Amino acid sequence: MVKKTNTATKKTAPAKERLTGFGPFDVPLGFRGLGMAAGLKASGRPDLTLFYSDFPCRAAAVFTKNKFAAAPITVCRESLRAEPENQRVILVNSGQANACTGKQGLATARAMAACAAKSLGLSPKQVMVASTGVIGQQIALAPAKKGITTLAREIASRSDWEMAARGIMTTDTFPKAAFMPVRIGGFTVKFLGFCKGAGMIHPNMATLLSFVLTDANIEQHALQSALSAAVATSFNMMTVDGDTSTNDTLIVHANGMTGNPLIRKGTAAFRIFSDALQEICERLAKQIARDGEGATKFVEISVVGAANSDDARAVAKSIATSNLVKTAIFGGDPNWGRIACAIGNAPARLRPQDVVVRLGGRLLFAKGGPAATPERLLAKAMKQKEIRIEVNLGAGRASATAWTCDLTYDYVRINADYRT
Amino acid sequence: MVKKTNTATKKTAPAKERLTGFGPFDVPLGFRGLGMAAGLKASGRPDLTLFYSDFPCRAAAVFTKNKFAAAPITVCRESLRAEPENQRVILVNSGQANACTGKQGLATARAMAACAAKSLGLSPKQVMVASTGVIGQQIALAPAKKGITTLAREIASRSDWEMAARGIMTTDTFPKAAFMPVRIGGFTVKFLGFCKGAGMIHPNMATLLSFVLTDANIEQHALQSALSAAVATSFNMMTVDGDTSTNDTLIVHANGMTGNPLIRKGTAAFRIFSDALQEICERLAKQIARDGEGATKFVEISVVGAANSDDARAVAKSIATSNLVKTAIFGGDPNWGRIACAIGNAPARLRPQDVVVRLGGRLLFAKGGPAATPERLLAKAMKQKEIRIEVNLGAGRASATAWTCDLTYDYVRINADYRT
Repeated sequence: MVKKTNTATKKTAPAKERLTGFGPFDVPLGFRGLGMAAGLKASGRPDLTLFYSDFPCRAAAVFTKNKFAAAPITVCRESLRAEPENQRVILVNSGQANACTGKQGLATARAMAACAAKSLGLSPKQVMVASTGVIGQQIALAPAKKGITTLAREIASRSDWEMAARGIMTTDTFPKAAFMPVRIGGFTVKFLGFCKGAGMIHPNMATLLSFVLTDANIEQHALQSALSAAVATSFNMMTVDGDTSTNDTLIVHANGMTGNPLIRKGTAAFRIFSDALQEICERLAKQIARDGEGATKFVEISVVGAANSDDARAVAKSIATSNLVKTAIFGGDPNWGRIACAIGNAPARLRPQDVVVRLGGRLLFAKGGPAATPERLLAKAMKQKEIRIEVNLGAGRASATAWTCDLTYDYVRINADYRT
Repeated sequence: MVKKTNTATKKTAPAKERLTGFGPFDVPLGFRGLGMAAGLKASGRPDLTLFYSDFPCRAAAVFTKNKFAAAPITVCRESLRAEPENQRVILVNSGQANACTGKQGLATARAMAACAAKSLGLSPKQVMVASTGVIGQQIALAPAKKGITTLAREIASRSDWEMAARGIMTTDTFPKAAFMPVRIGGFTVKFLGFCKGAGMIHPNMATLLSFVLTDANIEQHALQSALSAAVATSFNMMTVDGDTSTNDTLIVHANGMTGNPLIRKGTAAFRIFSDALQEICERLAKQIARDGEGATKFVEISVVGAANSDDARAVAKSIATSNLVKTAIFGGDPNWGRIACAIGNAPARLRPQDVVVRLGGRLLFAKGGPAATPERLLAKAMKQKEIRIEVNLGAGRASATAWTCDLTYDYVRINADYRT
């Protein structure tokens, strides 16, 4: 329906890139993961993933604030409320988002959870579900159930994290995972996180889909508290296109298998745990920005000198969300006026003459006007694959960092014919 | 620097389209307009425009809320404060926005106003100035002054509204004007409006540049009040790309030449005047959406059944601003889930099951799920050049309308190499 451009931007063909970032011994104790092509996607690519813990998990989650929150989110909330310290399974499908699907959609989400529970000898309330894909399409329940039964049977004897990571992908061009070990009170606690992104990415509470598994022993309330804090400075500071999805879901499962003394809020151990969770969320969020739909460049925006954190975040996100900044970065055009304009649109205290803007280390803007940096140096800085924009508001001591990607022909192409 | 696409979307070459919408006898009494190519644009296209009134005007204006408001806006505010009932001239240049240009930029804006005043035998405080173009570049004062002197000399003997409309254009593909006569108390009051838009269009107080001339006799405070109300439901409900410019300016000049009894606030005559001003602002705003950078389709979003006006506007603007909705419209894909998602992201009271969405008159979404309308009918509706999205929130009686355009390859192309 839409002609393809002949520009050489990033392909969205099936990614050959392998899952990296962790080895077989890096998996948190007691967790398994498996994915498969269950026939939910017309393309035949992997579309169903099961994460399983051998032991009960304390769980925490954040969800989209969109009022059309998808059916699986309703099911997740119910499971989390009923069994916050006894979760075992996260079941994820891609292909259909199961959002705006009415009563039938909710029945499907419940049936999928029930099928996983039955196959694994659990209660449905020990299962959390998540979906991603086209909004408004019903998931075909028969192939989904068949796939769930297969995964439940096979996961008893093996894991395949590569397939697990691929089963949650939509327009992502590479599978996304992050691993991190951390020492807490003489014990090694491991974190393994997965996520998918690519489009409709402007999280408000959480990204499209992300799952973090850890063998830490931590109070459930402390876990939720650490998660909410981590999200504020990671997923919520990353944007691809300014659209918050109906399905944004981030779930953390902590099964306590590492045997460390229970982590309680306000302790030194809690701070170490929280920092590690923040770090893993940030790594995952950056991968999503790097793999934004049609993206050719990764952009980090660092704001310092703000009167307070809200101001710093507002300025960073205003730049990250500006279509004009993002197209200029795609074109390699050091059109810093658009950055100044985006700063000026943010609800933040500032005086234009106090603002200093740098791009790739080069001075762009100071004292209310353009800096004397030669254009060719700025043009060179704009041609990098990784662009760093630094803003000093000169109004205080608070700071924030946001991540995004450029806005390209391929973003338009992917989204003009995503469904058709 | 950026390869061009071979997609056949709208050209941005010099527009051959003529100014339409009014004839020589439609000009409000006592106004003149002239434009020329003064050499401020490298392309050699028209870049300087003078609007002149033979008699003193009561003036009103709204400006951008961007903190990096351009230098000419400072000059406008000063003139308006000093001589709110004695304005005579609006001087506009395109090519450079004179924003983020520091002290030199402010001196240039003042010098341009002073030059126009001197050439026409007026005080500088009787002149308002506006600029549009690249942010951060200084206007070359010598050719600007030469052009101003030429325009001031020639405007004594002739008007050329076509050139006046072209002198304020940047990436616009056609000149934009709207005319409307209205009967007030037995007198015919005329309105003639001009505007330019195309990119960085997400007004907050006013659009990029717009000027409305009227021969009505109206109190200055009443004029400002009518203008502020008109903007809220016209320019502020229109978006191209979600970016609010540093230069947004809307000025109304009313010279009273029609001889009608002075219009005061709260009277029947004031209501007629306000409605007419709203109508002309809406016509101008729609032209800007229609000519959004790279646009191939015009989109009107009508929201009814909202709990209050704020909710209605928030939902209409959320849809109008969504990159995903706008790319789907470009691709002709009836991906209504994205519309639902955009509705759900707005800060408005609603229950998903109460929301009804129609596209081109066809039912898309109701009772929390997809409607039974056949896909081919929806696809046909999406292929129109003019797309109408109707949303009933089922939460009250308030309504709002917003306008936008689709997001295309050409938007990316134009903005990736605008400056280079």
